[in-house]
Amino acid sequence: MKKAVVLVSGGLDSATTLALAKEQGYACYAISFDYGQRHRCELEAARQVAEMAGVVEHKLIRMDLNSIGGSALTDSSIDVPQQPAEGIPVTYVPARNTVFLSFALGWAEVLGAEVIFIGVNAVDYSGYPDCRPAYITAYEKMANLATRAGVEGSGIHIQTPLIHLSKAEIIQQGMRLGVDYASTVSCYNPDAEGLACGRCDACRLRAAGFEAAGVPDPTRYQAGAR
Amino acid sequence: MKKAVVLVSGGLDSATTLALAKEQGYACYAISFDYGQRHRCELEAARQVAEMAGVVEHKLIRMDLNSIGGSALTDSSIDVPQQPAEGIPVTYVPARNTVFLSFALGWAEVLGAEVIFIGVNAVDYSGYPDCRPAYITAYEKMANLATRAGVEGSGIHIQTPLIHLSKAEIIQQGMRLGVDYASTVSCYNPDAEGLACGRCDACRLRAAGFEAAGVPDPTRYQAGAR
Repeated sequence: MKKAVVLVSGGLDSATTLALAKEQGYACYAISFDYGQRHRCELEAARQVAEMAGVVEHKLIRMDLNSIGGSALTDSSIDVPQQPAEGIPVTYVPARNTVFLSFALGWAEVLGAEVIFIGVNAVDYSGYPDCRPAYITAYEKMANLATRAGVEGSGIHIQTPLIHLSKAEIIQQGMRLGVDYASTVSCYNPDAEGLACGRCDACRLRAAGFEAAGVPDPTRYQAGAR
Repeated sequence: MKKAVVLVSGGLDSATTLALAKEQGYACYAISFDYGQRHRCELEAARQVAEMAGVVEHKLIRMDLNSIGGSALTDSSIDVPQQPAEGIPVTYVPARNTVFLSFALGWAEVLGAEVIFIGVNAVDYSGYPDCRPAYITAYEKMANLATRAGVEGSGIHIQTPLIHLSKAEIIQQGMRLGVDYASTVSCYNPDAEGLACGRCDACRLRAAGFEAAGVPDPTRYQAGAR
């Protein structure tokens, strides 16, 4: 059975990506990151998502991105915006996907996995540069020059099954595959119980996706959030 | 004053790279990694090297590469070879430079630094794929697609001043700039006091470099190591 490393954040997109990787017949190895994010409750969601999908192994990597800062998600002195903004928003975490993919790349090499799945999306997204197709293509090229797997083996392929889908299409794929979206957390600014704020960019994109897909929104919101 | 992030491992190459970055007039921000390496005493060496060079800041990032393993440097069940081998050796750490550069990239963005210095070398080296010019070029291209600095700013440049130098030439550069090589640690398998084994690939390359440069080797070796 071919192996794949799948980045699982606990959000809607990565849960769908994991279901699509399974559908393609891969033995899935989930990897999540405790990087000092404001929305750490997503890690419990990631655990549930990985368990429900029956992954072979779920690895949690701890690292300190707070000490680098520069984002509303890793620096508590920067507020999460409640309105969409122009350009790359302050919730962008410098080099986050590059750091995440790099750990996934190391693990893929050790496992002998030829594929890394990441649920980036360049349609209904927050405008982060590291979610675009050109970035993924460049990452894959770099990865194959960086590693034993690329130089002596059969190479590493980065699969991004969601990259050209709308949020509604992503949700439709997940519904078809039985993803339990009630277990997922997308909010950047949840309360202590993990209830969603309903106002941040991630909440807005998610709620609009359920509405456009014609699927009841199972998100657990804070009182008065919407 | 222009800013540069400089990867400082505590070894001979990165100490020289830091001196060359200073010579170019950069305000230097050193970054080191506690990744569960066998040769953790290099971190004390990194601290000394950074302090002697007068860096603006020295950041130590902790992360767990042991849980990924796959290398003699991060898995204590794999011995460090005492003889050179064919191909990519077991001291290769999967995706290590990619992980390190990715943290440096995030910090460079936050600092507004346009340059990252890394002391990779493709002449007297262990054959690691992530030390070659093609890899660095691909990393830089990826980095400029990944980040706000690349998309909205003036870009990120990866400088590798040692990449085409022999170990002897590197040592000559460092001697010219007053680098104290006695403070640096290259050995992959030092003892508890940080004394070098004299037999691993890193020790062999280093000792041969001092000999070829005609410079007395200041390395502190274990008793009977050579």
